[in-house]
Amino acid sequence: MAYRASATRIDRDLELRGRILARAHARVVEGGFAALTMQALAEDVGIATGSLYRHFAGKGELAAEVFAQASQVEVDSLADVLRGPGPVASRLAAGLRQFAARAWHSRQLAFALIAEPVDPQVDEQRLRYREAYAELFCRLLEEGQARGEFEVPSVPLAAACLVGAIAESLVGPLSPAARAERVSGLAPDGLQAVSDSLVTFCLRALGASQPVQEDQP
Amino acid sequence: MAYRASATRIDRDLELRGRILARAHARVVEGGFAALTMQALAEDVGIATGSLYRHFAGKGELAAEVFAQASQVEVDSLADVLRGPGPVASRLAAGLRQFAARAWHSRQLAFALIAEPVDPQVDEQRLRYREAYAELFCRLLEEGQARGEFEVPSVPLAAACLVGAIAESLVGPLSPAARAERVSGLAPDGLQAVSDSLVTFCLRALGASQPVQEDQP
Repeated sequence: MAYRASATRIDRDLELRGRILARAHARVVEGGFAALTMQALAEDVGIATGSLYRHFAGKGELAAEVFAQASQVEVDSLADVLRGPGPVASRLAAGLRQFAARAWHSRQLAFALIAEPVDPQVDEQRLRYREAYAELFCRLLEEGQARGEFEVPSVPLAAACLVGAIAESLVGPLSPAARAERVSGLAPDGLQAVSDSLVTFCLRALGASQPVQEDQP
Repeated sequence: MAYRASATRIDRDLELRGRILARAHARVVEGGFAALTMQALAEDVGIATGSLYRHFAGKGELAAEVFAQASQVEVDSLADVLRGPGPVASRLAAGLRQFAARAWHSRQLAFALIAEPVDPQVDEQRLRYREAYAELFCRLLEEGQARGEFEVPSVPLAAACLVGAIAESLVGPLSPAARAERVSGLAPDGLQAVSDSLVTFCLRALGASQPVQEDQP
């Protein structure tokens, strides 16, 4: 009996933890990490702020977990495309376009993940996930080098450059200032232009030998 | 008399503030932002912790000011090289090499500025200074486009990509893990290899038409 009661309690705890994270994620999607306060979140979930602190030691820990879950989704989506069939350069181009499009269609979240000033715990996750992206690109570049599609002096260095170029090229277009401009009708570069520039920059940088065949319209 | 007394007091305050910032900078050079605690700093300067708080509201504000001063030095050094004489591509290559060398020779500080997880106030300054770097590169790329040395679809996008590629390519080699490896003799890529890769990556990405003439040895 004692065992069953405690199992039920663990289930309840996990279920509540899941609900907290889902609501926290929704808050970040809506308003970035700035909108993620312990008090507002407790109200969303319908629990006391004190109960929230039993699950997460503070905003930093909670934000880091929201960050990690959301980033893992992006890493997995990118990995799916990069590991697809076809020439390596085409897969890289498709991966870049998908990454940019996903960011574009969830700008507040993407800006929060890439660049929003936030607790150091999130910065630590950022370093970790940039490593994860670099790892994906390392494997792709090795394949591209082996097939003679790319020619770079150092695969790890080029992979790091890709990670930085991708993140930074999106920070500006996704930033709150750019969003405000779009709302007010000033309309800076659209997704297509951003993606085209990014793909050109990255493929050239890798010494891609051929113009890339892309399936995109 | 009242005026003179208050002028003297302002001078004293400025002098102390300058000393605090110099000691704070020294701490970050030695051990990153992690080594910058209000208590240790107050001891360094020889004042009470309470006096320190009269000059800086907290560690975040202090760290942000140390960051801004150190970053401005880097931006100015880079600007000097980029605005020099000669072909645009050669100036860019020289600027990248100087930036990498400065970072390499002050790794703890460079890692702290680029990537160390730290207070959100520093993250805000990071965004601001990445804008400053992007601005420098925008002007250089426009010049390169006008002279037919570069050919990029979008100057602001390419400038952002450069900023990201440069920062990210250095994060790994400058990281505490890489420093530990060097100390233990595992010796990853040296400065020359990092610089060569970075220059190749960036110049190709910009569609630089010619092999670049560099004065570097």
